[in-house]
Amino acid sequence: ILSKRIVVLPGDGIGPEVCSEAVRVLRAVSSRFGHEFTFDYQLMGACAIDATGSPLPEATLQACRQADAVLLGAIGDPKYDNDPTAKVRPEQGLLGLRKALGLYANIRPITAYDQLLAHSPLKAERIQGTDILIFRELTGGIYFGEKGRSEDRASAYDHCTYHRDEILRIAHRAFKAAETRRHKVTLVDKANVLETSRLWRETVQSIAPEYPSVALDYLFVDNAAMQIILNPKQFDVILTENMFGDIISDEASVIAGSLGLLPSASVGDGAALFEPIHGSYPQAKGKGIANPIATILSAAMLLDHFHLQEEADCVRDAVQHALDQGVVTPELNPTTLYTTEQVGNFIAYSV
Amino acid sequence: ILSKRIVVLPGDGIGPEVCSEAVRVLRAVSSRFGHEFTFDYQLMGACAIDATGSPLPEATLQACRQADAVLLGAIGDPKYDNDPTAKVRPEQGLLGLRKALGLYANIRPITAYDQLLAHSPLKAERIQGTDILIFRELTGGIYFGEKGRSEDRASAYDHCTYHRDEILRIAHRAFKAAETRRHKVTLVDKANVLETSRLWRETVQSIAPEYPSVALDYLFVDNAAMQIILNPKQFDVILTENMFGDIISDEASVIAGSLGLLPSASVGDGAALFEPIHGSYPQAKGKGIANPIATILSAAMLLDHFHLQEEADCVRDAVQHALDQGVVTPELNPTTLYTTEQVGNFIAYSV
Ligand SMILES: CC(C)[C@H](C(=O)O)[C@@H](O)C(=O)O
Ligand SMILES: CC(C)[C@H](C(=O)O)[C@@H](O)C(=O)O
Repeated sequence: ILSKRIVVLPGDGIGPEVCSEAVRVLRAVSSRFGHEFTFDYQLMGACAIDATGSPLPEATLQACRQADAVLLGAIGDPKYDNDPTAKVRPEQGLLGLRKALGLYANIRPITAYDQLLAHSPLKAERIQGTDILIFRELTGGIYFGEKGRSEDRASAYDHCTYHRDEILRIAHRAFKAAETRRHKVTLVDKANVLETSRLWRETVQSIAPEYPSVALDYLFVDNAAMQIILNPKQFDVILTENMFGDIISDEASVIAGSLGLLPSASVGDGAALFEPIHGSYPQAKGKGIANPIATILSAAMLLDHFHLQEEADCVRDAVQHALDQGVVTPELNPTTLYTTEQVGNFIAYSV
Repeated sequence: ILSKRIVVLPGDGIGPEVCSEAVRVLRAVSSRFGHEFTFDYQLMGACAIDATGSPLPEATLQACRQADAVLLGAIGDPKYDNDPTAKVRPEQGLLGLRKALGLYANIRPITAYDQLLAHSPLKAERIQGTDILIFRELTGGIYFGEKGRSEDRASAYDHCTYHRDEILRIAHRAFKAAETRRHKVTLVDKANVLETSRLWRETVQSIAPEYPSVALDYLFVDNAAMQIILNPKQFDVILTENMFGDIISDEASVIAGSLGLLPSASVGDGAALFEPIHGSYPQAKGKGIANPIATILSAAMLLDHFHLQEEADCVRDAVQHALDQGVVTPELNPTTLYTTEQVGNFIAYSV
């Protein structure tokens, strides 16, 4: 019997709906396998601003620090997006949490599901068999550098910095993952222009000999943005810095045919956070049309993190079963009428 | 009779081959329409480093400053890419030239050619009819900010800065272009994280009322990287900063089915530079397989810049004719055996 405390941050928009389904699936796993999972719901994002004035209340941070894992829905609200002068933003909650928990590696698997090839904007023969694992650095770079305005507010700046140690820790993780996969790491950078990219390249180069079975290659980010679409099957593990990883991983998501399928794990030395890569999708809120699979697969990565391999595979099999049976939300099949909850229920019962 | 001085910078890799064909086409135009174009060849890039030690020799810069326009092939050589400690790089030549000539706006049209829909990795129905004009800021941002290392070289930094005036001048160009097109500007930024992006958003917002016929909307760069693939037809004019523009415009190039088709213009208050968006493609150098069309279409943009509308359209029609007749290099049709020169000749004769 395993006993684990999971903090749930439903967040904004469709976050609460998709989180409910992932929790339902985790409860099904715990009852089938006899574990004890407790779920502690906390506020983060726009809902936390509305309730407390802060996007990351102290109580939330404390709970996450003491948790065995954090499951996040999504955060963000359009009312903050088009006001460039807003002082408090939902995103600060997420960025603050990543930094506070030291979640320096964001890991995003990109898979082309055979059942969904028709949904991708890419031709099936280009993407069939794609299996990419993206390692995005998550607590450094331009996201967390000094930023500000000149006194007259007419110029703005954002500083990007990286230290060798920040690169080493995630690079080792990427190489280790490649050792268990197809033995290739592609570093995405802009070393022909940026000094931070040159530091990335030289640092990653320096440890490559420790992983003799892994081939290392490099792509400039502009070229990578093309190659991911032109020939995604060439990639195994992609390693990159924070800003490039944000762009490249969302771009790569088109391969899967729906953002609603893609999970992620953000890990550090201790705690770990699991979240779908989609956003809060406010237009869909409360309509029962949000796809819960990305969050459910994030819950499977959470089980991996607990070393519950059988349990995690069981969740992934249940998701495959739902795809096979066509039990999916309308963006994947507009003619069926399954709701978020029905899809979640189906997967939970199949566990 | 129009008399114009054009500096040609063939550069590296396939640059010289594709430039020859564009010059051939410009010569055909000048003899058909009775203009006097003189071509002044200068060194830039890796070839300039090899010959003079500098990627942008003073003679090249002087010639460009006095020219009516600059035509560039491509620069870059792999021998500099994987040496993060190289002090002199081919790219410094291009970046230096952009800065010295004040080429603050890089303009890239992205068109899906009907004849080439089958070549795109994207499904035809998603891209047919795509017509995007990207305005990428080219002399500011993280490309030109302070960059360096700590004393122990274990940390690196790159500073991104923007001034309101740098944003205004390109934003006005983007709005004016939209007025002659489908009346829509999409600003791509990361205003939920970056202060420079918030300055972009507030500055662009502030002038939008001067263009009442143009609708302005915003996309975060990660979302934009998806939307460009999911639904490229939603875009008319895209406006963005330097680094995001580098990534987004190369990504969007996949729509056309070949990088070898896409031209660009870089303009400022005076001089202007025209170049294909593809790189120096060193593996293809000297093989006669490089597609000259991107450079030829860049030459058409050069004619636009000289207000030679009929001449420019004539070049574009000749390119269409080559595509219609299947007179294309092997990447577009592996069964025909047309060389770079044959494609250039065909287009020049059709002018
Ligand atoms: C919400 C936003 C700050 C965030 C990011 O840019 O990191 C999101 O896009 C993501 O990728 O998790
Ligand atoms: C060669 C490189 C410096 C350049 C850039 O990043 O601007 C190129 O990628 C481009 O887009 O023109």
